[in-house]
Amino acid sequence: MNSSIVRFILGQVLKMEALLLLLPCLAAVFYLEPEGFCYLGTAALCLLSGTLMTLKKPANTVFYLKEGCVATALSWIIMSLFGCLPFVFTGEIPSFINALFETVSGFTTTGASILSDVEALSHCSLLWRSFTIWIGGMGVLVFLLAVIPLSGGSNINLIRAESPGPSVGKLVPKIRYTARILYLIYFGLTILEILLLLAGGMSFFDALNTGISTAGTGGFGIKNDSMASYSPYLQWVITIFMILFGVNFNAYYLILYRKFKKAFGMEELKYYFLVIAAAIGIIFCNLVQTTANVFQSLTDASFQVASIITTTGFSTVDFNAWSESCRVVLILLMFIGACAGSTGGGIKVSRLVILCKTVVKELNSYLHPKSIRKINFEKKVVEHDVVRSINVYFITYMVLFSASVFIISFEGFDLITCFTAVTATFNNIGPGLELVGPTQNFDLFHGFSKLVLIFDMLAGRLELFPLLILFHPSIWKDLFTQKRQARRLHKLRTEQSNRGQTN
Amino acid sequence: MNSSIVRFILGQVLKMEALLLLLPCLAAVFYLEPEGFCYLGTAALCLLSGTLMTLKKPANTVFYLKEGCVATALSWIIMSLFGCLPFVFTGEIPSFINALFETVSGFTTTGASILSDVEALSHCSLLWRSFTIWIGGMGVLVFLLAVIPLSGGSNINLIRAESPGPSVGKLVPKIRYTARILYLIYFGLTILEILLLLAGGMSFFDALNTGISTAGTGGFGIKNDSMASYSPYLQWVITIFMILFGVNFNAYYLILYRKFKKAFGMEELKYYFLVIAAAIGIIFCNLVQTTANVFQSLTDASFQVASIITTTGFSTVDFNAWSESCRVVLILLMFIGACAGSTGGGIKVSRLVILCKTVVKELNSYLHPKSIRKINFEKKVVEHDVVRSINVYFITYMVLFSASVFIISFEGFDLITCFTAVTATFNNIGPGLELVGPTQNFDLFHGFSKLVLIFDMLAGRLELFPLLILFHPSIWKDLFTQKRQARRLHKLRTEQSNRGQTN
Repeated sequence: MNSSIVRFILGQVLKMEALLLLLPCLAAVFYLEPEGFCYLGTAALCLLSGTLMTLKKPANTVFYLKEGCVATALSWIIMSLFGCLPFVFTGEIPSFINALFETVSGFTTTGASILSDVEALSHCSLLWRSFTIWIGGMGVLVFLLAVIPLSGGSNINLIRAESPGPSVGKLVPKIRYTARILYLIYFGLTILEILLLLAGGMSFFDALNTGISTAGTGGFGIKNDSMASYSPYLQWVITIFMILFGVNFNAYYLILYRKFKKAFGMEELKYYFLVIAAAIGIIFCNLVQTTANVFQSLTDASFQVASIITTTGFSTVDFNAWSESCRVVLILLMFIGACAGSTGGGIKVSRLVILCKTVVKELNSYLHPKSIRKINFEKKVVEHDVVRSINVYFITYMVLFSASVFIISFEGFDLITCFTAVTATFNNIGPGLELVGPTQNFDLFHGFSKLVLIFDMLAGRLELFPLLILFHPSIWKDLFTQKRQARRLHKLRTEQSNRGQTN
Repeated sequence: MNSSIVRFILGQVLKMEALLLLLPCLAAVFYLEPEGFCYLGTAALCLLSGTLMTLKKPANTVFYLKEGCVATALSWIIMSLFGCLPFVFTGEIPSFINALFETVSGFTTTGASILSDVEALSHCSLLWRSFTIWIGGMGVLVFLLAVIPLSGGSNINLIRAESPGPSVGKLVPKIRYTARILYLIYFGLTILEILLLLAGGMSFFDALNTGISTAGTGGFGIKNDSMASYSPYLQWVITIFMILFGVNFNAYYLILYRKFKKAFGMEELKYYFLVIAAAIGIIFCNLVQTTANVFQSLTDASFQVASIITTTGFSTVDFNAWSESCRVVLILLMFIGACAGSTGGGIKVSRLVILCKTVVKELNSYLHPKSIRKINFEKKVVEHDVVRSINVYFITYMVLFSASVFIISFEGFDLITCFTAVTATFNNIGPGLELVGPTQNFDLFHGFSKLVLIFDMLAGRLELFPLLILFHPSIWKDLFTQKRQARRLHKLRTEQSNRGQTN
């Protein structure tokens, strides 16, 4: 493995994190909060470590899928490890594991919190929490590629490892421009939402936090009651933008280039909106029976469906208290998730559509054993290899999911708490049901369970394999044998040069 | 489609059912129960319908996978429809849908009951309930093939559609002998268990019922407390035989032919016993903490693990009251299920092993993209097509499972009840947790939900696709167009002959 390029990328990520940490510093200056120094200190630490790691440029900048996966997984881990330090330094989250949980929850756009009183946090910490979501939403390496030229390497492997969805295409031939276009759309939509929130009378700080948290489909609220205290107008703006950020960004790209017919004809979008409409319908019919307030029921149903299917995780009501059929609908939405190529998590609509088409194809093969039909998606034949990798993804997903529930169950909480805790973290949603419901938090778990949930959040965000690869012994063997080889080579050379000098 | 052969097979199945219905009649004679006449009447009805359907022999006896699936699915449905009539006629289960639920539950070896007071049933009804399990355990068509020669046809398609597990091999070249050997082993083991139960002081009627119910891994108890009132010796005998009937019958075949090394080297068996040991270990450690009685804890843990992993469903304790980790272990066992080629249900050990190997293979392909590794199982390379069909099986399984939970959730019961009701029926286990726990029954559901659960039981037993095929419109179109064509041909011929007569 080309470990020097991995080290170099990790260094770049840390340098970038130093830069990003300046935003909460600015907030601290504005609100005159002493906590800002902790952020400044962490930024300095990141810069120092980053600079040390990038001092020596890698001789060979080419890297393959393996390096891409390892670099991505380690980037996210190292970013979280450094990103959680300010919480510990300020003493706002004194326990390191809790701070790590909160930070990973941010970067992976989960939004699951261990805090019971969010409003007690300083402004800079609140902003950093929300900002981690925005960074994690589009992907930190995508950002890196947009800014820093990593020439020569097959950069698509980085995006492929980091981006949500079954297959990543380049929007434009140059991967760097693809990354830039993606960030441009992301940035534009975020600004638009913030402006609309401001127009509804939200304070700037609230609008900024809510905007970037929605954009990353993260869902860290800055109020203890999440979004319940906002006006219906604001709730509807958030609802619509949650849905918009759950859309495949390719659609926006197509719209940007005026290919409207192609954009609105996307098969994934059709199913995405179909599922949303059906879910809102079912929940609305349920709610309207009890509250008898049509508008309120529609607002609540739409907000919660949008929040869960896009895996944002905001809440305006305690949906844990809803009827069983509503709760099952929400659980199903948790697994479905947003579109591929969006900032949302879950299994993804396109994957599920292709999985269902695989079932229908199998049924047909029973009827016509000799016919060879291909699966079509988005008016294209889905390559056999993509179908296979989606199947394997789903199987891996279920295996990891069951294993996590099994481990978490040893905490002794009720089944629904364990099941939805894993569901909410693995799909990067945030709140689950019962003890991890929207009015509760994840602090009830022990350290080891929190580590499992942290793993689940990362595995969910990085789509399993890039993270799983780190557990393969060959990766570490590779790393160490390379170092040993390099050391041996170095020793050999110095010996030779010594000999040359003595001779 | 060759629909005349399907009709012919269905007729044979009904004739066979008439024969099988004589066993409860015998019991009725022995216990002087008037309910026997209802069984005799149903037997006559089956014989009449069967004879009518087999009057005309099919011209073409060749049938393919499609016909095999349709014949199998319809056989099981028609058998259940006729098999539930005695319950209705005797008035012991007056509601038709309840009687159908109970009968399907028997034939599919589920053992889920809608009865709250089993002991109120007549002896002949109790025996018929248990006997349906024994018939369904090995498969009714396998029995048919063992007895009636269906020459010329590719009978392997019938066994393939009916037998549990990813791939069915012929034990011996002639499919008929394979079926006979399977039934011989099945019969032998059942007799052995009954003898051991009798040796433990069980009454003959109890031993017979328990024996045949264990053999089919069904789990209809004939006592209201299932197996709780029996002595530890009897519970251990049942435990051991439940585990034995969950073993791949190929192993017994190999032992029968003194290929011991091959039999005990089977990979599936290794994992099967490993899972059993691990589950017993976890639950034992949990139970011993509360009861402090080592032997009792071991007995309970072993019995319940054996009962659930083999999908039998007997109970000696109310495991619904166990700790959450024990309950999660049991739920996981429900999904794992027994070995392929056994009488048990669930996803099957071999499928799960191959699924896990697929995940590892995918992980390796990230590390070595160019290497082409095959999956090995039982010291043989697993064909690509088998791997694919297992993947698709798993996906279909999850899709149907989620859809069922979704529909059942509209009943308004708690999530665990809905979830485990589907788990217990889809995997042919019997009891679930909470409201469908071992001390409860399935009568609380409405008619439509019961139909969904009946579908789940059949889908689980027939391994999804043979049943799903019935929902494909082309099957029915095929059937009707054929009939129309036949009618048109008939009309044409009579017209021609009429013309011939007039001319």
